[in-house]
This record gives sequence, structure tokens and C-alpha cells, in this order.
Amino acid sequence: MAGSTWGTILTMTTWGESHGSGLGVTVDGCPAGLFLCEEDIQKYLDRRKPGQSRFTTARREGDRVEILSGVFEGRTTGTPVCLLVRNTDQRSHDYSAIMDVYRPGHADYTFDMKYGFRDYRGGGRSSGRETLGRVAAGAVAAKLLAELGVTVTAYVRSIGPVTVSEERFDLPQAAENRLCMPDASAAAEAERYLDGMMAANDSVGGVVECIMRGVPAGIGEPVFDKLDARLAHAVMSIGAVKGVEIGDGFAAAGSSGSRNNDGFRGGRAIHKTTNHAGGILGGLSDGDTIVLRAAFKPTPSIAQPQQTVNRAGENTEIAVRGRHDPVIVPRAAVVVETMCAFTLADMMLMNMSSKLENVKKVYNGQSFAG
Amino acid sequence: MAGSTWGTILTMTTWGESHGSGLGVTVDGCPAGLFLCEEDIQKYLDRRKPGQSRFTTARREGDRVEILSGVFEGRTTGTPVCLLVRNTDQRSHDYSAIMDVYRPGHADYTFDMKYGFRDYRGGGRSSGRETLGRVAAGAVAAKLLAELGVTVTAYVRSIGPVTVSEERFDLPQAAENRLCMPDASAAAEAERYLDGMMAANDSVGGVVECIMRGVPAGIGEPVFDKLDARLAHAVMSIGAVKGVEIGDGFAAAGSSGSRNNDGFRGGRAIHKTTNHAGGILGGLSDGDTIVLRAAFKPTPSIAQPQQTVNRAGENTEIAVRGRHDPVIVPRAAVVVETMCAFTLADMMLMNMSSKLENVKKVYNGQSFAG
Amino acid sequence: MAGSTWGTILTMTTWGESHGSGLGVTVDGCPAGLFLCEEDIQKYLDRRKPGQSRFTTARREGDRVEILSGVFEGRTTGTPVCLLVRNTDQRSHDYSAIMDVYRPGHADYTFDMKYGFRDYRGGGRSSGRETLGRVAAGAVAAKLLAELGVTVTAYVRSIGPVTVSEERFDLPQAAENRLCMPDASAAAEAERYLDGMMAANDSVGGVVECIMRGVPAGIGEPVFDKLDARLAHAVMSIGAVKGVEIGDGFAAAGSSGSRNNDGFRGGRAIHKTTNHAGGILGGLSDGDTIVLRAAFKPTPSIAQPQQTVNRAGENTEIAVRGRHDPVIVPRAAVVVETMCAFTLADMMLMNMSSKLENVKKVYNGQSFAG
Amino acid sequence: MAGSTWGTILTMTTWGESHGSGLGVTVDGCPAGLFLCEEDIQKYLDRRKPGQSRFTTARREGDRVEILSGVFEGRTTGTPVCLLVRNTDQRSHDYSAIMDVYRPGHADYTFDMKYGFRDYRGGGRSSGRETLGRVAAGAVAAKLLAELGVTVTAYVRSIGPVTVSEERFDLPQAAENRLCMPDASAAAEAERYLDGMMAANDSVGGVVECIMRGVPAGIGEPVFDKLDARLAHAVMSIGAVKGVEIGDGFAAAGSSGSRNNDGFRGGRAIHKTTNHAGGILGGLSDGDTIVLRAAFKPTPSIAQPQQTVNRAGENTEIAVRGRHDPVIVPRAAVVVETMCAFTLADMMLMNMSSKLENVKKVYNGQSFAG
Repeated sequence: MAGSTWGTILTMTTWGESHGSGLGVTVDGCPAGLFLCEEDIQKYLDRRKPGQSRFTTARREGDRVEILSGVFEGRTTGTPVCLLVRNTDQRSHDYSAIMDVYRPGHADYTFDMKYGFRDYRGGGRSSGRETLGRVAAGAVAAKLLAELGVTVTAYVRSIGPVTVSEERFDLPQAAENRLCMPDASAAAEAERYLDGMMAANDSVGGVVECIMRGVPAGIGEPVFDKLDARLAHAVMSIGAVKGVEIGDGFAAAGSSGSRNNDGFRGGRAIHKTTNHAGGILGGLSDGDTIVLRAAFKPTPSIAQPQQTVNRAGENTEIAVRGRHDPVIVPRAAVVVETMCAFTLADMMLMNMSSKLENVKKVYNGQSFAG
Repeated sequence: MAGSTWGTILTMTTWGESHGSGLGVTVDGCPAGLFLCEEDIQKYLDRRKPGQSRFTTARREGDRVEILSGVFEGRTTGTPVCLLVRNTDQRSHDYSAIMDVYRPGHADYTFDMKYGFRDYRGGGRSSGRETLGRVAAGAVAAKLLAELGVTVTAYVRSIGPVTVSEERFDLPQAAENRLCMPDASAAAEAERYLDGMMAANDSVGGVVECIMRGVPAGIGEPVFDKLDARLAHAVMSIGAVKGVEIGDGFAAAGSSGSRNNDGFRGGRAIHKTTNHAGGILGGLSDGDTIVLRAAFKPTPSIAQPQQTVNRAGENTEIAVRGRHDPVIVPRAAVVVETMCAFTLADMMLMNMSSKLENVKKVYNGQSFAG
Repeated sequence: MAGSTWGTILTMTTWGESHGSGLGVTVDGCPAGLFLCEEDIQKYLDRRKPGQSRFTTARREGDRVEILSGVFEGRTTGTPVCLLVRNTDQRSHDYSAIMDVYRPGHADYTFDMKYGFRDYRGGGRSSGRETLGRVAAGAVAAKLLAELGVTVTAYVRSIGPVTVSEERFDLPQAAENRLCMPDASAAAEAERYLDGMMAANDSVGGVVECIMRGVPAGIGEPVFDKLDARLAHAVMSIGAVKGVEIGDGFAAAGSSGSRNNDGFRGGRAIHKTTNHAGGILGGLSDGDTIVLRAAFKPTPSIAQPQQTVNRAGENTEIAVRGRHDPVIVPRAAVVVETMCAFTLADMMLMNMSSKLENVKKVYNGQSFAG
Repeated sequence: MAGSTWGTILTMTTWGESHGSGLGVTVDGCPAGLFLCEEDIQKYLDRRKPGQSRFTTARREGDRVEILSGVFEGRTTGTPVCLLVRNTDQRSHDYSAIMDVYRPGHADYTFDMKYGFRDYRGGGRSSGRETLGRVAAGAVAAKLLAELGVTVTAYVRSIGPVTVSEERFDLPQAAENRLCMPDASAAAEAERYLDGMMAANDSVGGVVECIMRGVPAGIGEPVFDKLDARLAHAVMSIGAVKGVEIGDGFAAAGSSGSRNNDGFRGGRAIHKTTNHAGGILGGLSDGDTIVLRAAFKPTPSIAQPQQTVNRAGENTEIAVRGRHDPVIVPRAAVVVETMCAFTLADMMLMNMSSKLENVKKVYNGQSFAG
């Protein structure tokens, strides 16, 4: 498959370009009987919507989702759920500046090399609007996970040099401030930092952290489809992500076995005394909170002049004007969250047949539907 | 698929446990006509072989590979190449110590939770010996890439706190020292650090870096199968890897757009003036060197006593004795290298039909085989 | 994946129910640079449209296709082509008769058993309207195949007991009569037969034949993805198909080796003197015309009373009234044709890397896009 | 994937050539906890073994299977089960007669066209010995199905013009005669027919029928992965199969709706009064016996001289001498049976998440493994 489908049992197939007719996603393999309505999805889409603060693009996008199939009398039918978002903001633009010139840090050059030409309007398929499909599909997965007692939450851990403090960490706060940081003080500091960078016509990156709670132990498939490997794939596939880590991640590389190993203890249930592993051992969930971090590079569209070339290979300069977020991470948190939710839900469905005992649970006592 | 197959066009399917009859891999989809012999594969397997220094386990593994199929008169036939390595070191062991006790940092607990029981002999399927199949398959891919002018090389970038210096970086040196570090001085320092940790019955982690040269621009599929996403999946699926980054990776999150964007220049060919992107833009190769780093956690098997539980959930202690590498990264470099090579080769084959023009190149002028 | 995606390199993912908002398909993996417009697809959809004769349902369906993505300036961009057909004929119906009663020969009972409930409006996902997505996607594949010199054509070979005669076989005639039969005399006879069956409130089945010309030898993958195996899968997946055969098919089972083997001859090009094999040897195309036949069962919706049960398992009767084709095969021919075209195009793309020589053809002489 | 892997959750990956070192298969995704030993597999392999009567090749093949992985203390561990059969009969042959000449009805020509050259020893990968891997994998699936109350049985329905009679149909008899026909009288007649064909240096084809009992209703995925579509794919992928049908199959095309529809009746359980559908409605199992038939062409290797060409395209003749079955169907029955068993088992595992209710059954009351 040419890259627009994700998942094995629960799959999403997305399509759409920044300035085409619309974007959407088809979710296949969602179990029948899940209550689902447009509002369940809309509230996730609204979290990635631009125009929410002075740090996000002023572009007005309605981004209203329509359920085209797969839901009947309020519940999923087991057949594909197709979700469509029409592009409404398609006023005529002048693309002559970027039509023949490669914007640094963007996929303009690489798309031309791969396909011979490209839809140059607003990045086409490589636009950040492509994430609409991911978020819509992930909202369905999150609803499914909730039925199984699993929650997935992402927030901004750092913006440029400003990082959330462990001491002031306050998860509900992430929903309160415009930068989605679970630390009001760090958020205020990050705002000041952003103001300075915007004044300098520059942009910044950051780190999103995602935590998954309530995941039973044993989810993931050994060897190539380890849970962390699939999560890394899912999250690295988000535009602008340049690194992914689980638990202590890169810091673990500098640690020692005696510090990094998490001891087990018994009691009411087996549990770990620490969580350096980030909830995954040998590629399978260990019952503890799963912790993942994703590094986002700074927004490549900046108004400063940059060196580049045109399609003919001639040297030129470009200053990318227009509506661009100086930082993408506050809007990207929900993308990380929904990609993790979708991937986790898929792997929970894949895991159902890990033991003969579970297969028998489903097939014993089969009876007619009525 | 239950996790033992990797790839789309070029696939590998591995099997085998640490103390079973043998391990192996089936490579399917390798183009016909590639010269291939056992020695091509053996030399890669030898690089991951233990017993090469005092920092690797003393276990003697012959690890001789046998080609069971897919090669005729010295060339691949286009049909599956099956590669088998028999386990030779199967002397009777006493596993009573780990049979019912969960080793911290290992997959013992999670395998039991997933499957209800496990092959407790030496980790079974979750053993590091599982990488034999990956390396053997990757050796085939490396041979294929060489025909297309692409080289893939991995080495150790850091061991615990000791990191290779940019100034003293000398790639050929990585083949000269036992720690695979492209910096003799760092290697010597890392050896001293390791000696201290071994004396303390402790272990360390490290970072492996992999560079891919000669990759044409445009490799990778937009959205979910971006080249970096697939590479991240491949590398995160290696046991003990806790983080993956591309180019500047996590450092990019703290950078600014003006510093992080790589400018383009023309001339003989379009090229970038810097490579913060690590050779990948919008998920597609940009023609520059691809740079990937993987963080490995410290070896979890340490001789110090650690808190844990048994299968009954009762608290107990374990000290993991026997032959264990105090650091895995020098042997892991070739695993990262071969996983990257395999993934890249697969995506180069997937990319062949990106343009109608290339499809016509293959199908025009078809004639009979004789 | 839960069954709504078909293909490996060139994929289609369909969605939609008979009486939902709409139906559609996402085609991923189509090479960039193919000229494509809505009319290319519409003309295929029109061939499956009802209301074309007294033998097809009187239901008026506009079935206008809209390209939502993947085409820019008249050519495919290499990214997913999403095609949408809105359901326009959604006047309020009374479904109380079939809501709780299982129609014989339909999927009502099996959907309830699988999912616990079903969208009972007009068959929901199991309606024949589901084929809209297949036909639209196959139209794209047919356009691609035309660029490679390959044509795919399906027609009706028999309706009930009336079969096209070998002697009067006249392919263009299939486009001339309402029953798509390449034999005017058989078509006339079949019309008389159909009139009788309709008068008796009964329905009939038939056989569709599909021929594929210009396919180069060597297409298909040995063992599980033989070309005939994939074609059989594709065609058997069409609702109402109960059998598929290649070349002489079931007749070959009664033949002898000396009669059934096709001899080879040389000359300008290697060719076979007969084509009992139907253009496929060992699962790979042999350069000759590929011949496939599909058996369609009679339309299950008939106005006669039939024995059945309701959801509570109580015996009852049903007579399926409303607009139903007494024979489906004339409209089904284009479905077989497009499924074959799509499957063949996918396998031609998969075959591109069969030889190292072809891989080199694509990657040698890479240069920048401009 | 290049065609050597089959299945979605339960997968098999086969490899091996007729005259290479060996053949085998890796079964991935088998639930943990299934009792499995070599004898479970060997008894299936023995059913396809040659040398059992004067109608099968005199070649002596030991075909002893070895379990290389995935079984521990007598039960499957959930990790890949690798099964190896060494080729023992590799005495030096003289292949000069077929090295450069294309045998009619074989894949010699098409392999050369696809790959540029081929392993000409005994057909290489396209040999009937390739089915060893299928049968071994299917034996594992059959063991799994037995735990779920499902049985799969295949037998010979016709040889050349001789067909089993409905009246004398006696399933146990199929295990009693050398032609695997469930009708002693038809078997005797078929033997006489075969003797005549052998005397004439000719070969014959036949039809294998497979019945699947105890399958719960609702197995299969709508649209592209209908149960019948997957079974057709699986069975058509067996070498020499030219047609597949379900239930009444091609005969249904000549029937009428009133005769072909199976009525439902209630009582203890919902059931059908007839089974023209062959146990599949709308692509999903309906709880009734599933009935599939496969048409095998006559063995292409015959000792009569046949017209053909050599690799240079020059006309020549060939008479295929040596050990060849004059009819393949008695040995092929177990291949059809195991391919159906494997496909059915995979789809039963895929179906586990069709309803939210079943997902909850598996995940509610999760507890630790001990």
C-alpha cells in the first residue's frame, strides 16, 4: 500500500490535500455496537483547529466532520466508518511564489523528485491539514478504548528551551492554557519566548508527551510489531516529528542497569516500583502507564529570507509569508494522542487471539443474534 | 500478522528461540539475479557474534548460516531465500532460578501475561539471539543496495556517558576497536568506564548511529509510510531500543526555524548546505546522507540482587548470573545497520511505481527471456 | 484489515451503504502523471447504472462521481484518489417488512450473527450498491492499463440456460444489446427467457466472461499470490458470485494431458498454439489472452412468498417486493471487468521488481525533477 | 509481499524448491497453549506423500517434518512455529532435456519471463513439492479448529469423467481407497479409466470437494475478504487448480431464484432447509456445512511427444519422462483440505473483534498469569 493506510485489524485510510475539495478518512474494523456520533469526533478536531490563539494561524477553518457511513441508529455497524471534512477556505490564492521554488524544510523538493510534479497549493498532501484524517480516526479509537477502560492523553512538555517542571506538573492545567502545557508557569514563560521569536520572524519546535493508562499487560506482538515499535512508527509518521522515545528514552542510554531496571513487587497485583521502562517491556505493555515523547522540529515556514533553488536548479531566495503557526506543538498534541490511541486500539484487537483460552471465550456458547 | 514479518515488497519472516533447535529467516521478494552466497551473510552474522572481547558474553556460538532455498547457480531466483542457523550451544542448563521468577527489565512477566506461559530458557523468543534472523536478512538487502549504489553503516556513538567527538570522528576506526566507536580515544575511555561498571556488577547502555549514503531523493511514501516512520519502526523493534531520532532529532525541538532549516543550492546538482534534517524531508529522502540514532538501555541482566516477584506474585530477589554482555551496543550496531538496510531496500522497491514514466520504463520493450 | 481494502501496491478502500449518505472509494498507489478526469470514471459507473432496460430496477440513481483528491491539473499526483458518489434516492421507505425478517439468499441473517445487528435499509453494506466503489476504482486501473497496452473486457456469456454461441461470437455486439451478450441471437433468446421468468415472479442467474489482452508474460507471484488466485479472490468477492474459473476451468478436470496442454511455437515471438490454460501457467501470465468466467446466482429478491424466520427465530413468510433486477449479470459485467483490471494493474506494479535488471532500469540515471 | 505468505492474523510463509536443501513453512499467530507435536503434522504430510499406489510417482520421499521453533513443553508458545522438511532424494539427475526447453502446461516459460532464468531442477519453486509447506501449516490450523469444534474434510469427487454418485456417497470410504473417493464403485471405475490413460501415456484431471462443519455463523469479512473469496484465493493458488466453486457454484448460474434460495426455519436453532448456498451468504458463514469444489487440470507431464520451443525460441519436441503421477487429485485432496482449514482458522481469529461485546469478553476480568 502506498502509505495512506495504517493498522492491521483496525485500519484508517486517509486522503486529501490542503486546497482540494476535502479531506477524510475511512476507519475499517471498528467493532460493531460502539455508540458514535459526529460530536464525538468534532471535539477532537476542534483541538487541532487553528485560530485559537495568537500563536496559531489566523486561517479560519470550519472543519465540520460528516459521518458518511458505518453508523446506524447511533452505533457502529462493524462496516467502514467514513469521515469527511470539506475544505471551505479555498479563496483564490497566488501560488506563483512557491510554485517553482523549493521551500527549505518542506517536502516541495522531495515530492517533485518522487512524482515528477506536485500539487503546490499549500503543501498539497504534505500539508499539516493531512492530520485531520488521523485525528478523526483516532477519536473513534479513543471512544473504543474508553469502553475498555483505557485513556490516552497528550500535552506539550517543552517549547523551545522551556520545559514543564516535574514539581509543578498538573495535568488538568494542560487544558487550561493555550500552549497545552501541564504547568501554568512554564506556559507563561513559553509565551514570552514565543513572542520574542515571532518578533524575529522565527519559529520554534517542542516536545509532546503522551501517556496511556489502563492498558492491560501483554499488548503488542513480539519482534517486529512490538507495541513501542508500532507507536514509534505512528508518531514518527506525523509531519515535523524528528524523534520518538519511550519511558526514559535517550536518557536510558546513559544510565546503568541497576538504576534503569524497574523492580517488581506483589501485593494486590503485580506492579513495578518505578517506570523507567515507560510501561513497555520486551515490546509488550507491562500494565504500567505507557509514556511516549515526540520531538517536533520548528515550523519551517518563516518570513525571513532563506537560500534556496527553483525547479530549474537556479539559486534564489524565499521568504514564506502568510498564515503560519510560529510553533506547531500545541495543535500537534491531539495528533500524537489520537495516533497513539488508534495504534493501541489496533494492537488490543490483534492481541485478542494470543491465547487459545481467549479464542474459546469468544467461540464457546455462540448463539443466534436475536 | 503476529509480528514476525517485516516489509511490504521485500519481506523477512523470522522464527526461533534462544534455546530451541535453531533460528532463521525467510526473505521474500528479493529481485532475481543478485549474486549471493553464504559468505555474504556470514560476515554480517560474525559482527554480532558474542565472545569477541571481554565486554561480550563468553558463550561460544558457531552461528553458521545455511541457505536453504532461493539461490540457484550463485544467484537469487526471485523466490524465497530461507536462511537457517542451528543452535549449537544447547548444553543442559538449570533454569529453575528464572523459571518462576520475573527478571526485572526483561520480557518474562509480559510474555506470561500475554500467552499464559513462556519458554523460559534464555529468554526464548525475546532473547537477543532473535536478531540473528534480522541480521541475515539485512545482509541480503545490503547486497541489493550495493548494486544500486547505496551504502548503510552503523557504529557506536556513545557508551554510557562517553560520546564520540565530532572532531576526532574517523569512520574506519569503528572497524578497528572492540567497541565499534569511530574515535579511538573515546573507545579507550569507554573501555575504562566499562571496566568500572563490570567490577560493580552493573551494566550500561549507549547510542548507535547509522548513516545511509547514495539514497536517491524521493524514497518513502507520504503519510503513514514515511521513510523515517518505517526506519523508526524497524529500529524501535530491536530489543532494548528506547528511542530513535533522525538528523538533529530531539535537539531540533529546541532549535529555531532559521537555524534548523537546511537551505538548498544549485550547481552540478541540487543539494542542501546543511543536513539538520538528516536526509529526510516530508518523510521522503532528499538525496543527502540519512542519519539515524537509536538509544539502547543498559543490559537488564546484572549480577546484583534485584527486587522482583515470582509467578505466584510473591516478593523475592534475583541476581542474574551467567554469561551476559555488560553493554550490548557494540554488537547491536550491525543489527541497526541491517534493519535500516532492509527497510530502505524495501522502500526503494515500493517507490518503483511512483511515476507512470518509471512503470513504462519497465514494461516498454518487453521481450522473451532467452 | 476488516475486508474493505483490496490490493498490495495499488489499493482500493471502499465504504458506504445502500441508504446512507453516500458511497465511495480511495485509490492509493496510482502512479503519478496519469491523465484522469471524472468522465473517465463516470462512463464506467454508467454501465452498472440501473434503469437501463425493463430487466433492471426502475430505481433512478444519479450516481455522479466526484473526485475529492489526488488529481491536480488533470493528472494523478501519486497521492490517494478519493471518489465519492452521494446517495440521492433516499426517500423515506417502510422497512418494517424486512427489519426483523431474514430474506432468503441475502446476508441479513449472517450480518446479524456477526455484528449483533445490521443496517436493514436496502441491505446496507451488503447491497449491490457497494460495487460502485469497485467500479470507480477499477476505472482508474483501466486507464493505467491502457497506458501499458493492456485491455480488459467483460460481457455476459450466459443467462440461465441461454449461452452465447462460439460461432456467432461478436464482441462489439455486447455493447449493442441490453443484456451485454456478444451474440445478438442469444441475447434475443435470453430476453424471451427473462420475460417468462419475470411473469412467474422468479429470477435467473448467469455467467460473465472477462478477457484480458496485451498482458506481458510473467505477471503474478508464485505460490499464494498467483495471478489466477488473486483474480479468483477479486471476482469471488463480488456479491452473488458462486464460482470462478480460468481458461477451460472445470472442463479441464475432465480432459486429458495431451488435449489440455497448450503447445509452444516460435517465430516472431514465442506463443501457444491453443489456450486451454486461459493465459496463465503456474500462476503467471503467459502472454496469451487471459480468460476468466464467473458464475452468478439468481437474484435472491423475488416477489414469490418464501419460507423464512424472524429475528426471534419464529417461522414466517416473506415476499420481497419493490424494485429488483430479475437478472443481475448484465449490470455485473462491468463489476467483473473493473475488479479484474484493478487486480491486474496491482500485480503489474508488484512485478516491477522481479528482476534486478528492472530495478536498475528505474534507479540508473536518476536525476532531479525539473 | 512476494507471494509466499498467506493469512492476516494466522499466517504461513513457505519456502523451498523441489531439489534444494529442503522446504518448510513458518506459521505465525497461532494462539498459545495448543498441544502440538510432530506427529500431528506428519500424519497430514503422509497423506500427500507419493509412492502410495501405482497411480502416484514411485519417487521415495521420506518427508519427515521437524518442528524448529514455537513449541515448548508440548504446547504452542504463541511465537512462530517453524516446520522444516529436508529433501532427501537429491541424487544427481540429468536435467539437460528440460534445462533449455519449455514443458507445455508447466511454469518453465513463465518463470523465465518473469525472472530472466529459473531453477530448472524438477520445477524448482513451481514444483508440486511446494505444497509440503501448505499441508504442514494447515495441519496446525486443523488442530486449532478441532479445539473450536470445527472439522474440515476433503476428498476426490471426480477423476476424468468418473464422478462420485450422490446415492452411494459414503465419506469414510474416502479413507479406504487409493483414489480418496467416497464411493467404492466410482473408485473402481476410476482405476480402470486411469489404467487406460496410463497405457496411452496420457494423464487426467479431476475435482476435489471440501466440506467444513461446525463453523459458527458470521465468519468472513464483508466486501473484499468474504469467506468464499478468501477460500477461492487459497484454493486457486494450488498449482493445477483451474476453477473453484461454492455450494451449487456454476450450476446456480442456470437455476432460478425460487429454486436456489434456501429457506430459513426456526426451532431449536435457526437453520436452512436446503444448502444451495454451500454454507455462505453474503460472504459470511451461515452456520450450515460449507461446501467447496476445486477443478484440477490433468498432470501436464506426459510421456507423449509434445510441440514446444527452447529458450532461443526455436521449435522442438519434448516427451517428459520420469516419475510423474498420471492424476494428481488423490494426493491433492489433503492440500485443498489444509488450505481451507488454514484460511478458515485465520478468518475465525479475524472475526473475534466483530462485536464490542466480544472484545469486552476478552478484556474484562484480565488478571495476572500465575
